[in-house]
Amino acid sequence: MSGDFPEQAAEMLQRLRGATPRVHCLMNTVVQKPVADGLSALGAIPSMTSSVDEVSGFVAKADALVVNLGTLDDQRRQAIRLALDTVQDKAKPWVLDPAHCDYSPPRATFAQELLARGPAVMRANASEFVLLSVPDTVVGVRTGASDLVRQGERSLAIENGHALTAKVTGTGCLSGAIIAAFLAVERDAFQAATAAMLVVGVAAEIAGETAHGPGSFEPAFLDALDRIGPAEITKRARVAHAQD
Amino acid sequence: MSGDFPEQAAEMLQRLRGATPRVHCLMNTVVQKPVADGLSALGAIPSMTSSVDEVSGFVAKADALVVNLGTLDDQRRQAIRLALDTVQDKAKPWVLDPAHCDYSPPRATFAQELLARGPAVMRANASEFVLLSVPDTVVGVRTGASDLVRQGERSLAIENGHALTAKVTGTGCLSGAIIAAFLAVERDAFQAATAAMLVVGVAAEIAGETAHGPGSFEPAFLDALDRIGPAEITKRARVAHAQD
Amino acid sequence: MSGDFPEQAAEMLQRLRGATPRVHCLMNTVVQKPVADGLSALGAIPSMTSSVDEVSGFVAKADALVVNLGTLDDQRRQAIRLALDTVQDKAKPWVLDPAHCDYSPPRATFAQELLARGPAVMRANASEFVLLSVPDTVVGVRTGASDLVRQGERSLAIENGHALTAKVTGTGCLSGAIIAAFLAVERDAFQAATAAMLVVGVAAEIAGETAHGPGSFEPAFLDALDRIGPAEITKRARVAHAQD
Repeated sequence: MSGDFPEQAAEMLQRLRGATPRVHCLMNTVVQKPVADGLSALGAIPSMTSSVDEVSGFVAKADALVVNLGTLDDQRRQAIRLALDTVQDKAKPWVLDPAHCDYSPPRATFAQELLARGPAVMRANASEFVLLSVPDTVVGVRTGASDLVRQGERSLAIENGHALTAKVTGTGCLSGAIIAAFLAVERDAFQAATAAMLVVGVAAEIAGETAHGPGSFEPAFLDALDRIGPAEITKRARVAHAQD
Repeated sequence: MSGDFPEQAAEMLQRLRGATPRVHCLMNTVVQKPVADGLSALGAIPSMTSSVDEVSGFVAKADALVVNLGTLDDQRRQAIRLALDTVQDKAKPWVLDPAHCDYSPPRATFAQELLARGPAVMRANASEFVLLSVPDTVVGVRTGASDLVRQGERSLAIENGHALTAKVTGTGCLSGAIIAAFLAVERDAFQAATAAMLVVGVAAEIAGETAHGPGSFEPAFLDALDRIGPAEITKRARVAHAQD
Repeated sequence: MSGDFPEQAAEMLQRLRGATPRVHCLMNTVVQKPVADGLSALGAIPSMTSSVDEVSGFVAKADALVVNLGTLDDQRRQAIRLALDTVQDKAKPWVLDPAHCDYSPPRATFAQELLARGPAVMRANASEFVLLSVPDTVVGVRTGASDLVRQGERSLAIENGHALTAKVTGTGCLSGAIIAAFLAVERDAFQAATAAMLVVGVAAEIAGETAHGPGSFEPAFLDALDRIGPAEITKRARVAHAQD
């Protein structure tokens, strides 16, 4: 599958831009702005409210949801439960990002509770993954120096990316939101997640070619998400069958 | 009036920079930072708290207020009511921005309640405007591909601007805050709003000439707000009597 | 001491990068993202939650804490008290930044209460300093056109910096967080604070050489924090015994 995968990812990106899907983000307060900008640059439409009396209305209008557990408090926990009632009711896809659950036992417990509610994809880093038990029905995306997408026996590694990504707060959270945007246009969650991570990785690579550091990397990365086309993806893709 | 309008707008900008007005912003959490930066770049002084035990003190020290309904919750609703008590008590001008009230019926209801409390200006996009009944005492600013400023029979269209503005989260919210800054130095709300939108539009146009995408557009836009002078405004202004 | 101070500051920066200290930030909501990015660029690891059921766990894992009073509400006041219980229990250093306490009497009262709990350093501007009574055990850092570091009779002025810093929201708050990062690797709080302000000032100076305004200054400043090395610091340092 890694052979024709870049072409499929390029085609999915075109489909995403044609559809301009709405992605509702229950996002930590630190990175709401760069996540919104990243989605807009890619071609999706972000929304961000976590107000308990508004979240159901926003999620009902959205095509996909991302639930990020950073800066978690009671109000957002309540908003997340309401949002999941709505996505389950309307069978919309959603992504779980258990951000920093390795720092906070109650957050890890809550992440495990949410995994039981059936996200299409969970995105996390290695130290978050080891704490959680991920059902086979959920596609796992483990981001790091290379990104691993796995579901049961199926797995692919995406080698694209740039080291400066780790120095810009919010790039990981944005990956979760971009996976949600791809889920809005592709029902195969494994393929949607792999396409999303490939687009993010190639855009980061392009940005890294002109950046002078993490400050100039961030606007260059947004510019790349805006301009990236099928040709860059198929030319630059480095996707391999993973041996983990 | 569109004939000598650019000169008046240029003069108002100079007045604003001389006065460095304080603008308190009850702003959605996503865009507090870019709105603060945009006001500072222009020459105003932003403040942002929406804490219920502090908001009255901050508003009392401010020269104008902007109330933005994005990411609205109970605490901010309460802070907005307290802030409006203070601006009405002290006869300070304020701007209403009913952000995304088309997504959320309770937000539209709240926006209508706030319109009855007499903002000088309401800034909104077309899909928000159609939901609300705007009194003739309120100047309406409808932002979009071109910006329309209207009060009763009086209306002007500002054709300056750049398409990338729509891809950067917070530029619309910043327009509302910049209108508030102009209201602090100009009592004619129609003229203040038109000057504000002209300055924003010309700055966006200048930024668009060097930007490579939405990421590089944002810092270029802030640079342009900082450097823009009377000459650029009078030279570049494209203001027309509107036919709506 | 100002004679060999730049060498000591350069050495401290190397030590910081080797240690990659974790800095927990109880930060106003406006500038969480640029503060996180600034710490990451410098070589530290930021965290930001102010949730009352998570803050103790995060602070326990951190090497230093910064408490910033901007956009203060009841929840963050409660989180601050919990965080201080943890840092005092574990004898970790912390910085107080009484942001805008000159706008809000309850905030000034709270700042005075916090000063009694023994921060290593307080960072503030001149109008905030005059409202507060700072014990001799606390190092005071008064930021402005030049930065003054003082403890009892001991004081130094750092003349490095750039005027655009004042036009970018969050640079002052970032200074407080960077002082906390230096405290994590240097027990002498006076030296840690002076080193931090020197690194910030030199990075701002470097950024100012390529910036076209406040918008391009911010990414250039982050790039400079990432790349700045011992040679720039010792070559550019302008530190003087202060006469206040």
